[in-house]
Amino acid sequence: MSASASAATTADRTALIAAIDAQGSKVRSLKEQSADAGLVKAEVDALLALKEQLKALSVSAGSASKSATAATGSKMVLKTPKGTRDWEPLAMAVRSQVFESITRVFQNHGAVTIDTPVFERREILAGKYGEDSKLIYDLMDQGGELCSLRYDLTVPFARFVAMNPIEYGSMKRYHIAKVYRRDQPALSKGRFREFYQCDFDISGSYDAMVPDAEILLILVEALTALDLGSFTVKINHRKILDGIFDVCGVPADKTRQISSAVDKLDKSPWEEVRREMTVEKGLDGETADRIGEYVKLKGGRDLITKLFGDARLTSSARAVEGLKDMATLYDYLDIYGISEKMSFDLSLARGLDYYTGIIYEAITAASAPPSFAAASGAEVSGAQAEQSKAKSKKKTAQGEEEEIDESTVGVGSIAAGGRYDNLVGMFSGSKKLDSVPCVGVSIGVERVFAILMQRIKEAERNGEKSRFRAKPVDCFVMSMGGDGFLKERMKVAKLLWDAGIKAEFLYKAKPKPGPQFAAAEKDGVPLTVILAPEEWASQEVRVKEQKGKDSVEGQGKGQVVGLDQLAAYVARLLKENAA
Amino acid sequence: MSASASAATTADRTALIAAIDAQGSKVRSLKEQSADAGLVKAEVDALLALKEQLKALSVSAGSASKSATAATGSKMVLKTPKGTRDWEPLAMAVRSQVFESITRVFQNHGAVTIDTPVFERREILAGKYGEDSKLIYDLMDQGGELCSLRYDLTVPFARFVAMNPIEYGSMKRYHIAKVYRRDQPALSKGRFREFYQCDFDISGSYDAMVPDAEILLILVEALTALDLGSFTVKINHRKILDGIFDVCGVPADKTRQISSAVDKLDKSPWEEVRREMTVEKGLDGETADRIGEYVKLKGGRDLITKLFGDARLTSSARAVEGLKDMATLYDYLDIYGISEKMSFDLSLARGLDYYTGIIYEAITAASAPPSFAAASGAEVSGAQAEQSKAKSKKKTAQGEEEEIDESTVGVGSIAAGGRYDNLVGMFSGSKKLDSVPCVGVSIGVERVFAILMQRIKEAERNGEKSRFRAKPVDCFVMSMGGDGFLKERMKVAKLLWDAGIKAEFLYKAKPKPGPQFAAAEKDGVPLTVILAPEEWASQEVRVKEQKGKDSVEGQGKGQVVGLDQLAAYVARLLKENAA
Repeated sequence: MSASASAATTADRTALIAAIDAQGSKVRSLKEQSADAGLVKAEVDALLALKEQLKALSVSAGSASKSATAATGSKMVLKTPKGTRDWEPLAMAVRSQVFESITRVFQNHGAVTIDTPVFERREILAGKYGEDSKLIYDLMDQGGELCSLRYDLTVPFARFVAMNPIEYGSMKRYHIAKVYRRDQPALSKGRFREFYQCDFDISGSYDAMVPDAEILLILVEALTALDLGSFTVKINHRKILDGIFDVCGVPADKTRQISSAVDKLDKSPWEEVRREMTVEKGLDGETADRIGEYVKLKGGRDLITKLFGDARLTSSARAVEGLKDMATLYDYLDIYGISEKMSFDLSLARGLDYYTGIIYEAITAASAPPSFAAASGAEVSGAQAEQSKAKSKKKTAQGEEEEIDESTVGVGSIAAGGRYDNLVGMFSGSKKLDSVPCVGVSIGVERVFAILMQRIKEAERNGEKSRFRAKPVDCFVMSMGGDGFLKERMKVAKLLWDAGIKAEFLYKAKPKPGPQFAAAEKDGVPLTVILAPEEWASQEVRVKEQKGKDSVEGQGKGQVVGLDQLAAYVARLLKENAA
Repeated sequence: MSASASAATTADRTALIAAIDAQGSKVRSLKEQSADAGLVKAEVDALLALKEQLKALSVSAGSASKSATAATGSKMVLKTPKGTRDWEPLAMAVRSQVFESITRVFQNHGAVTIDTPVFERREILAGKYGEDSKLIYDLMDQGGELCSLRYDLTVPFARFVAMNPIEYGSMKRYHIAKVYRRDQPALSKGRFREFYQCDFDISGSYDAMVPDAEILLILVEALTALDLGSFTVKINHRKILDGIFDVCGVPADKTRQISSAVDKLDKSPWEEVRREMTVEKGLDGETADRIGEYVKLKGGRDLITKLFGDARLTSSARAVEGLKDMATLYDYLDIYGISEKMSFDLSLARGLDYYTGIIYEAITAASAPPSFAAASGAEVSGAQAEQSKAKSKKKTAQGEEEEIDESTVGVGSIAAGGRYDNLVGMFSGSKKLDSVPCVGVSIGVERVFAILMQRIKEAERNGEKSRFRAKPVDCFVMSMGGDGFLKERMKVAKLLWDAGIKAEFLYKAKPKPGPQFAAAEKDGVPLTVILAPEEWASQEVRVKEQKGKDSVEGQGKGQVVGLDQLAAYVARLLKENAA
């Protein structure tokens, strides 16, 4: 049964249910009016006929395909799509706090924000992601353009700059939004198919390494603000890598392939990478070994000095350009006080095609995969997607892949980026390929969410109060005694709402005190406003502070306040408590 | 040429460009070193060979299909997909302010927020939207589940509640997010294929009309906060409509069809709707005319009284239930002081299948279509999509539809909603169809954005200052004289950033004062921090307030401040200026 057929069935079913509802109502009404028995019977028969129709529809749908059955609602598979999730209120509170922290850092550095559509014309994304293009979600061809969900925020940014070179050829922008990858999910590790990236990029021609150094500072500030513990930023330079490949004897047209082999060094031993270079990519063994000598080097400014002293490497003008950049960069990093956070690591290559200068990747202790925790961690959440390879997969009966064993997977880098001077030019079709040089960083926050949610759960287990409140209500308006005071509670709530005070009350005509106190307690509402007959008679209510469970037992009688003073009194209390 | 083939081509091209870049660098380096002429020639030849390869690739791609040509970057169609747009920084500032206004109202009423994936399993959406299901965006079948982009936020909410009935069977939640409809766009009117909805819904069983009245209050508060001028909320009740159809003699199984005909009364004259009922839907003329008498009625509490006095209508128990609801509702609306904003309008039917009780729709003067501006406006931005019908369309050479003549289109209702007591039950498969009753409202904000952007442009034309700042920078750090003070400006900026002060500086080693003042001026930065040789010698800088253009000419010399006092001084100035 096709989707549209099952849709029609469900629509019919909805209409039938409504008709049955209406007809049942009619029958009840006739019976109440003690209407003529023949008339009642006729309407009852009509009702039964409708019910038969509904039954027939359910049976026919039930005997059709799984999808049709599901659509009728009786056996619907009730879940979000694979690799996605709902955000419950507490998770939203955490998410919003994380975004605020990051946004504060981004705005501190003078960035504006933009947004782009969740899908792009397919040609915009084509050829930007190497092997990982297979992970792109395509929209169905329903006539008109072919589109795909965005895979990252960098390519849409470059497209945006190319479309608006006059206005935005020189800008600092951040963009916090969801991106989409048809990857193997590992939910408990924070690896999703729909996930957030927090990007900061600088477009424009400036003096060398000035924006690059600031991007690294922003990265350090953001990771520090997120309070994830210690972290390291691995940095390298594409021109130095190119110089290494050049002086080691890699043919120019093999550079990118060899670079992508080097990029696997954080997950695979050198022997395996060497085998890929020589056996798979046809590099001669001697060349590979020369590369091997270089890419095992790590350090800081000392390594720059060492490489400047390497006559073979400095015979490459390209390597010298890269080394000069690195030296300048370290000067600026010193001013920003973040050189110690960096590790100049010649094995860092980054998989994406479009990088042209400095590249980097941040690793936290929390994000390293178990097997590599002691080492430097594996790339996962960044732009590459090695994670879908070499993992044990099983096909289920439905033909979908089962989740992988999450205990064997780390989250890898928590942020990554680099300089990409040609990407905008690829869109603008400008003859000058480097028309709008750019540098940027992308922070993957799903792992941060996972860590924070875990901390909240631990705090809960320990009976500690979490700093996150999903529901920031100030005042619970309740009645004690009387006839329930529904309309009066409405009136009081309206009075508080009008004053901008977050208030609610139970939507019941005659609620007992217990459930009202419980509702206030559950959401940690700091104040209750209590309506009772004696006070209401003189247009007064009682305002009580809810400090812990004692208040439920009625310790402290609160303060009786006239309605005309209520909003001001509550506002003052809230302000005092906040201070 | 397939998309993946063109992707491969582009990847090749990117690799080639990188190789050419590297090889060019090598050649330059050899020349600089005055290397052996033969060696230089060999490398130049290699370079030329690479360039030939690039040329060949471009030609082969160029002779292939349009899409392949585009993917090579040389003739790329540079745009966002039809009916979508980028959000530039100023638009983002407006958007964020609109969301803040609405969120404040929602949170005032004790709502939490959730988020759901941008796509759902297709069966979740099936059969919820009647004829408009054809507007749903489907994802391509790439293996695994079939999914579609969300069409609204109501169905995902119902799915969420059905999945979590214990935790969220009784909740107030808001959700501000993008939804997707393959509709005919009219961009200048704020009608997009990717657009925002701001939803507030209440799930749970409560005393009749208490949550319903609060939803209407929330709607009124939100529209008031958005400052759109006068508006009216049309309200009706599905049970009253059902009662009317019943007593007029509509067969139970035709109820929904006739209801959907009535729903067109805001755009079509009665004669046309009557023709649809009789000719298309086979209703007898007399029944149609009886309906006609009812659906032209409009009013407030007076209309409720009048209908209670209508013996024919009150013979329907269902109508009486609806009328009792309306009477209770008006009691509560009176307490909330919003009865005057309502128009009880028997012609309002709402197209969606799932409504079961009160229904409503808000119309602003700004949102009414030109031809109906004097009347009540047409449904467009809400859950229905009449807009794709009866509009003149032209096919372009590319087979895509041209934009419609926007001057003939209004935006219609700016918000809509109602009670839907069976939708969650459709998902949970519960035998009790009304297991989790819900009521909610959805505010369409695209039109609000359009109006606000228009106001900003008008203000700009009149030389007025807009209250929206896309880039909220506090301090511009600049140099005057000396060698440009690049590192010193970095140091000062770092000092400000560390104190949480939004600061920036020009990424140039030796900038002239003009461009620095211009940059500060352009973004309306309130303070400049100026580094000059004489002051820097004693570790001091000059802080100047940028009040209008005079400051550029140097009126007012500002204040000389020691570096150790700078952050505190600037923070104090900013605080004073904000107050």
